[in-house]
Amino acid sequence: MNSSALALKPLTAEAFAPFGQVLQKKDRFLEEINYGLTRKYADLATVDVSDASGQTGVHLFNSSPVSLPLRIEILERHPLGSQAFYPLHKRPFLVVVAPAGDVPQAADVRAFISNGAQGINYRKGVWHHYQITLGEPADYLVIDRVGPGENFEEHRLEQGLVISELPAA
Amino acid sequence: MNSSALALKPLTAEAFAPFGQVLQKKDRFLEEINYGLTRKYADLATVDVSDASGQTGVHLFNSSPVSLPLRIEILERHPLGSQAFYPLHKRPFLVVVAPAGDVPQAADVRAFISNGAQGINYRKGVWHHYQITLGEPADYLVIDRVGPGENFEEHRLEQGLVISELPAA
Repeated sequence: MNSSALALKPLTAEAFAPFGQVLQKKDRFLEEINYGLTRKYADLATVDVSDASGQTGVHLFNSSPVSLPLRIEILERHPLGSQAFYPLHKRPFLVVVAPAGDVPQAADVRAFISNGAQGINYRKGVWHHYQITLGEPADYLVIDRVGPGENFEEHRLEQGLVISELPAA
Repeated sequence: MNSSALALKPLTAEAFAPFGQVLQKKDRFLEEINYGLTRKYADLATVDVSDASGQTGVHLFNSSPVSLPLRIEILERHPLGSQAFYPLHKRPFLVVVAPAGDVPQAADVRAFISNGAQGINYRKGVWHHYQITLGEPADYLVIDRVGPGENFEEHRLEQGLVISELPAA
Protein backbone atom coordinates (compact mmCIF):
# COMPACT_ATOMS: atom_id res chain seq x y z
CA MET A 1 0.00 0.00 0.00
CA ASN A 2 1.35 3.43 -0.91
CA SER A 3 1.61 5.94 1.86
CA SER A 4 1.40 9.71 1.82
CA ALA A 5 3.00 12.04 4.30
CA LEU A 6 0.66 13.53 6.92
CA ALA A 7 1.82 16.90 8.18
CA LEU A 8 1.38 17.94 11.82
CA LYS A 9 -0.12 21.34 12.52
CA PRO A 10 -0.35 23.19 15.84
CA LEU A 11 -3.65 22.55 17.58
CA THR A 12 -5.78 25.70 17.54
CA ALA A 13 -9.49 26.20 18.18
CA GLU A 14 -9.93 27.58 14.69
CA ALA A 15 -8.19 24.74 12.85
CA PHE A 16 -9.92 22.10 14.98
CA ALA A 17 -13.41 23.64 14.77
CA PRO A 18 -14.67 21.25 12.03
CA PHE A 19 -13.92 18.33 14.34
CA GLY A 20 -14.84 19.63 17.79
CA GLN A 21 -13.45 21.85 20.53
CA VAL A 22 -10.02 22.51 22.00
CA LEU A 23 -10.10 22.39 25.80
CA GLN A 24 -7.84 25.23 26.86
CA LYS A 25 -7.99 28.42 28.89
CA LYS A 26 -7.31 30.65 25.91
CA ASP A 27 -10.22 32.82 24.80
CA ARG A 28 -12.64 31.22 27.25
CA PHE A 29 -15.01 33.31 29.34
CA LEU A 30 -13.34 34.09 32.61
CA GLU A 31 -15.37 34.32 35.79
CA GLU A 32 -14.04 34.77 39.31
CA ILE A 33 -15.74 32.54 41.86
CA ASN A 34 -15.11 31.23 45.38
CA TYR A 35 -14.71 34.73 46.84
CA GLY A 36 -12.04 35.61 44.28
CA LEU A 37 -9.90 32.53 44.90
CA THR A 38 -10.80 30.74 41.67
CA ARG A 39 -10.75 31.70 38.01
CA LYS A 40 -13.29 29.69 36.01
CA TYR A 41 -12.73 28.99 32.31
CA ALA A 42 -16.16 27.77 31.43
CA ASP A 43 -17.87 25.47 28.95
CA LEU A 44 -14.84 24.12 27.14
CA ALA A 45 -16.55 21.09 25.61
CA THR A 46 -19.97 20.33 24.19
CA VAL A 47 -20.70 16.92 25.67
CA ASP A 48 -23.21 15.14 23.43
CA VAL A 49 -24.77 11.84 24.55
CA SER A 50 -27.42 11.84 21.77
CA ASP A 51 -30.52 11.20 23.86
CA ALA A 52 -31.88 10.27 27.27
CA SER A 53 -30.54 6.71 26.96
CA GLY A 54 -27.01 8.08 27.08
CA GLN A 55 -25.19 9.19 30.22
CA THR A 56 -21.94 11.10 30.56
CA GLY A 57 -19.07 8.76 31.44
CA VAL A 58 -15.79 9.84 33.03
CA HIS A 59 -12.75 7.60 32.66
CA LEU A 60 -8.99 7.54 33.11
CA PHE A 61 -6.94 6.20 30.21
CA ASN A 62 -3.30 5.20 30.68
CA SER A 63 -1.64 4.99 27.28
CA SER A 64 1.67 3.61 26.13
CA PRO A 65 3.75 5.73 23.77
CA VAL A 66 4.27 5.07 20.09
CA SER A 67 7.33 6.05 18.11
CA LEU A 68 7.64 7.97 14.86
CA PRO A 69 7.43 7.39 11.97
CA LEU A 70 3.87 6.20 12.62
CA ARG A 71 1.55 4.73 9.99
CA ILE A 72 -2.03 5.95 10.22
CA GLU A 73 -4.16 3.11 8.89
CA ILE A 74 -7.32 2.79 11.00
CA LEU A 75 -9.69 5.48 12.21
CA GLU A 76 -12.58 5.07 14.65
CA ARG A 77 -15.76 7.01 15.38
CA HIS A 78 -18.42 7.10 18.06
CA PRO A 79 -21.75 7.59 16.27
CA LEU A 80 -23.72 8.10 19.48
CA GLY A 81 -21.67 10.66 21.33
CA SER A 82 -18.80 13.10 21.69
CA GLN A 83 -15.52 12.13 23.33
CA ALA A 84 -13.14 14.46 25.18
CA PHE A 85 -9.53 13.82 26.19
CA TYR A 86 -7.65 16.01 28.64
CA PRO A 87 -3.93 15.25 29.12
CA LEU A 88 -2.85 14.80 32.73
CA HIS A 89 0.77 14.48 31.62
CA LYS A 90 1.07 18.03 30.28
CA ARG A 91 3.23 16.93 27.35
CA PRO A 92 2.51 17.22 23.61
CA PHE A 93 0.41 14.48 22.05
CA LEU A 94 -1.01 13.95 18.58
CA VAL A 95 -4.61 14.27 17.38
CA VAL A 96 -5.56 12.74 14.03
CA VAL A 97 -9.06 13.35 12.66
CA ALA A 98 -11.28 13.22 9.60
CA PRO A 99 -14.71 14.80 9.18
CA ALA A 100 -17.88 12.99 10.27
CA GLY A 101 -19.40 11.06 7.40
CA ASP A 102 -19.78 7.56 6.11
CA VAL A 103 -16.25 6.72 5.01
CA PRO A 104 -13.16 8.80 5.76
CA GLN A 105 -10.82 9.51 2.85
CA ALA A 106 -7.08 9.77 3.37
CA ALA A 107 -7.09 13.18 1.67
CA ASP A 108 -9.41 14.50 4.38
CA VAL A 109 -7.33 13.37 7.35
CA ARG A 110 -5.75 16.11 9.46
CA ALA A 111 -3.12 15.81 12.19
CA PHE A 112 -2.57 18.22 15.06
CA ILE A 113 -0.12 18.45 17.93
CA SER A 114 -1.37 19.57 21.35
CA ASN A 115 0.96 21.75 23.40
CA GLY A 116 0.21 19.60 26.47
CA ALA A 117 -2.06 22.18 28.09
CA GLN A 118 -4.74 21.52 25.46
CA GLY A 119 -7.31 18.79 25.49
CA ILE A 120 -9.76 18.06 22.69
CA ASN A 121 -13.39 17.05 22.34
CA TYR A 122 -14.36 15.09 19.23
CA ARG A 123 -17.81 15.98 18.01
CA LYS A 124 -20.20 13.03 17.68
CA GLY A 125 -19.32 10.93 14.64
CA VAL A 126 -15.97 12.57 13.88
CA TRP A 127 -13.43 10.00 12.69
CA HIS A 128 -10.25 9.92 14.73
CA HIS A 129 -7.21 7.86 15.50
CA TYR A 130 -6.83 6.71 19.09
CA GLN A 131 -4.88 9.28 21.07
CA ILE A 132 -1.20 9.16 20.16
CA THR A 133 1.09 9.40 23.15
CA LEU A 134 4.76 10.25 22.72
CA GLY A 135 7.82 9.55 24.83
CA GLU A 136 6.47 7.77 27.91
CA PRO A 137 3.22 6.33 29.28
CA ALA A 138 0.65 9.01 29.98
CA ASP A 139 -2.74 9.49 31.60
CA TYR A 140 -5.77 11.23 30.11
CA LEU A 141 -9.12 12.11 31.67
CA VAL A 142 -11.79 11.04 29.18
CA ILE A 143 -15.40 12.25 29.01
CA ASP A 144 -17.76 10.45 26.66
CA ARG A 145 -21.08 8.65 26.39
CA VAL A 146 -21.99 5.50 28.26
CA GLY A 147 -25.25 3.70 27.59
CA PRO A 148 -26.96 1.21 25.32
CA GLY A 149 -26.29 0.93 21.60
CA GLU A 150 -23.21 0.39 19.45
CA ASN A 151 -21.01 3.44 19.84
CA PHE A 152 -17.78 2.26 18.19
CA GLU A 153 -16.88 1.79 14.53
CA GLU A 154 -13.55 1.39 12.78
CA HIS A 155 -12.52 2.01 9.20
CA ARG A 156 -9.27 1.07 7.45
CA LEU A 157 -8.09 3.82 5.11
CA GLU A 158 -7.63 2.81 1.49
CA GLN A 159 -4.42 4.80 1.36
CA GLY A 160 -2.00 4.75 4.28
CA LEU A 161 -0.64 7.92 5.82
CA VAL A 162 2.62 8.42 7.65
CA ILE A 163 3.54 10.92 10.34
CA SER A 164 7.31 11.11 10.01
CA GLU A 165 8.52 13.51 12.64
CA LEU A 166 7.53 16.27 15.01
CA PRO A 167 7.67 19.86 13.79
CA ALA A 168 10.83 21.74 14.69
CA ALA A 169 10.32 23.43 18.06
CA MET B 1 -18.50 32.19 67.45
CA ASN B 2 -17.04 29.06 68.96
CA SER B 3 -15.12 26.78 66.67
CA SER B 4 -14.57 23.06 66.77
CA ALA B 5 -11.65 21.21 65.30
CA LEU B 6 -12.32 19.42 62.03
CA ALA B 7 -10.08 16.41 61.52
CA LEU B 8 -8.72 15.46 58.09
CA LYS B 9 -9.08 11.87 56.99
CA PRO B 10 -7.50 10.15 53.97
CA LEU B 11 -9.81 10.19 50.96
CA THR B 12 -11.09 6.69 50.24
CA ALA B 13 -14.00 5.47 48.12
CA GLU B 14 -15.60 3.87 51.18
CA ALA B 15 -15.39 6.92 53.43
CA PHE B 16 -16.55 9.26 50.65
CA ALA B 17 -19.42 7.05 49.45
CA PRO B 18 -22.16 9.00 51.29
CA PHE B 19 -21.12 12.12 49.37
CA GLY B 20 -20.21 10.80 45.92
CA GLN B 21 -17.37 9.05 44.12
CA VAL B 22 -13.59 9.16 44.28
CA LEU B 23 -12.05 9.43 40.79
CA GLN B 24 -9.05 7.13 40.92
CA LYS B 25 -7.69 4.07 39.16
CA LYS B 26 -7.89 1.90 42.27
CA ASP B 27 -10.50 -0.86 42.13
CA ARG B 28 -11.91 0.31 38.82
CA PHE B 29 -12.72 -2.07 36.02
CA LEU B 30 -9.69 -2.37 33.77
CA GLU B 31 -10.12 -2.87 30.06
CA GLU B 32 -7.37 -2.87 27.46
CA ILE B 33 -8.25 -0.93 24.32
CA ASN B 34 -6.47 0.63 21.35
CA TYR B 35 -4.79 -2.64 20.36
CA GLY B 36 -3.34 -3.07 23.83
CA LEU B 37 -1.80 0.39 24.02
CA THR B 38 -4.34 1.82 26.48
CA ARG B 39 -5.63 0.73 29.87
CA LYS B 40 -9.12 2.11 30.53
CA TYR B 41 -10.31 2.71 34.08
CA ALA B 42 -13.97 3.19 33.37
CA ASP B 43 -16.98 4.98 34.78
CA LEU B 44 -15.35 6.84 37.64
CA ALA B 45 -18.13 9.38 38.18
CA THR B 46 -21.90 9.38 37.99
CA VAL B 47 -22.60 12.64 36.19
CA ASP B 48 -26.12 13.79 37.08
CA VAL B 49 -27.69 16.72 35.26
CA SER B 50 -31.20 16.09 36.66
CA ASP B 51 -33.19 16.19 33.42
CA ALA B 52 -33.15 16.97 29.72
CA SER B 53 -32.81 20.70 30.40
CA GLY B 54 -29.36 20.09 31.86
CA GLN B 55 -26.20 19.50 29.83
CA THR B 56 -22.81 18.30 30.97
CA GLY B 57 -20.37 21.19 31.27
CA VAL B 58 -16.59 20.88 31.27
CA HIS B 59 -14.50 23.66 32.79
CA LEU B 60 -11.00 24.50 33.96
CA PHE B 61 -10.68 26.10 37.41
CA ASN B 62 -7.46 27.82 38.46
CA SER B 63 -7.48 28.21 42.23
CA SER B 64 -5.31 30.17 44.60
CA PRO B 65 -4.04 28.41 47.72
CA VAL B 66 -5.26 28.99 51.24
CA SER B 67 -3.20 28.56 54.39
CA LEU B 68 -3.92 26.62 57.53
CA PRO B 69 -5.44 26.99 60.04
CA LEU B 70 -8.54 27.48 57.88
CA ARG B 71 -11.99 28.33 59.24
CA ILE B 72 -14.83 26.44 57.55
CA GLU B 73 -17.83 28.74 57.71
CA ILE B 74 -19.80 28.50 54.47
CA LEU B 75 -20.84 25.44 52.49
CA GLU B 76 -22.46 25.36 49.05
CA ARG B 77 -24.56 22.86 47.14
CA HIS B 78 -25.78 22.35 43.59
CA PRO B 79 -29.38 21.14 43.84
CA LEU B 80 -29.67 20.38 40.11
CA GLY B 81 -26.55 18.35 39.43
CA SER B 82 -23.37 16.57 40.41
CA GLN B 83 -19.96 18.25 40.28
CA ALA B 84 -16.62 16.55 39.70
CA PHE B 85 -13.12 17.93 40.28
CA TYR B 86 -9.99 16.29 38.97
CA PRO B 87 -6.64 17.79 40.08
CA LEU B 88 -4.27 18.62 37.23
CA HIS B 89 -1.60 19.62 39.77
CA LYS B 90 -1.19 16.13 41.26
CA ARG B 91 -0.73 17.51 44.78
CA PRO B 92 -2.88 16.91 47.86
CA PHE B 93 -5.94 19.11 48.28
CA LEU B 94 -8.78 19.18 50.78
CA VAL B 95 -12.41 18.11 50.35
CA VAL B 96 -14.97 19.25 52.93
CA VAL B 97 -18.52 17.89 52.72
CA ALA B 98 -21.80 17.44 54.54
CA PRO B 99 -24.70 15.19 53.54
CA ALA B 100 -27.39 16.37 51.15
CA GLY B 101 -30.34 17.82 53.02
CA ASP B 102 -31.94 21.12 53.86
CA VAL B 103 -29.46 22.59 56.30
CA PRO B 104 -25.98 21.21 57.02
CA GLN B 105 -24.99 20.86 60.66
CA ALA B 106 -21.41 21.38 61.81
CA ALA B 107 -21.44 17.96 63.48
CA ASP B 108 -22.09 16.32 60.11
CA VAL B 109 -19.22 17.98 58.27
CA ARG B 110 -16.38 15.70 57.15
CA ALA B 111 -12.97 16.66 55.77
CA PHE B 112 -10.79 14.54 53.52
CA ILE B 113 -7.37 14.93 51.94
CA SER B 114 -6.79 13.74 48.37
CA ASN B 115 -3.45 12.18 47.59
CA GLY B 116 -3.24 14.25 44.42
CA ALA B 117 -4.05 11.33 42.10
CA GLN B 118 -7.65 11.32 43.32
CA GLY B 119 -10.47 13.50 42.09
CA ILE B 120 -13.96 13.61 43.55
CA ASN B 121 -17.52 13.83 42.30
CA TYR B 122 -20.08 15.41 44.60
CA ARG B 123 -23.47 13.79 44.28
CA LYS B 124 -26.31 16.20 43.47
CA GLY B 125 -27.24 18.27 46.49
CA VAL B 126 -24.26 17.31 48.66
CA TRP B 127 -23.06 20.28 50.68
CA HIS B 128 -19.38 21.10 50.17
CA HIS B 129 -16.79 23.75 50.67
CA TYR B 130 -15.17 25.12 47.52
CA GLN B 131 -12.09 23.08 46.68
CA ILE B 132 -9.25 23.90 49.05
CA THR B 133 -5.91 24.27 47.33
CA LEU B 134 -2.68 24.15 49.31
CA GLY B 135 0.77 25.51 48.63
CA GLU B 136 0.53 27.14 45.22
CA PRO B 137 -2.06 27.96 42.54
CA ALA B 138 -3.50 24.86 40.94
CA ASP B 139 -5.71 23.78 38.08
CA TYR B 140 -8.67 21.40 38.21
CA LEU B 141 -10.79 19.95 35.43
CA VAL B 142 -14.42 20.34 36.50
CA ILE B 143 -17.44 18.42 35.18
CA ASP B 144 -20.88 19.62 36.24
CA ARG B 145 -24.30 20.68 35.00
CA VAL B 146 -24.94 23.67 32.79
CA GLY B 147 -28.47 24.73 31.94
CA PRO B 148 -31.45 26.73 33.16
CA GLY B 149 -32.46 26.96 36.80
CA GLU B 150 -30.77 28.04 40.02
CA ASN B 151 -28.03 25.50 40.73
CA PHE B 152 -26.12 27.23 43.53
CA GLU B 153 -26.98 27.71 47.20
CA GLU B 154 -24.84 28.70 50.17
CA HIS B 155 -25.33 28.14 53.88
CA ARG B 156 -23.38 29.64 56.79
CA LEU B 157 -22.78 27.09 59.53
CA GLU B 158 -24.10 28.00 62.97
CA GLN B 159 -20.91 26.69 64.50
CA GLY B 160 -17.56 27.36 62.88
CA LEU B 161 -15.06 24.59 62.22
CA VAL B 162 -11.30 24.84 61.96
CA ILE B 163 -8.84 22.70 60.04
CA SER B 164 -5.62 23.25 61.93
CA GLU B 165 -2.98 21.27 60.15
CA LEU B 166 -2.28 18.48 57.72
CA PRO B 167 -1.95 14.95 59.05
CA ALA B 168 1.60 13.80 59.67
CA ALA B 169 2.93 12.16 56.50
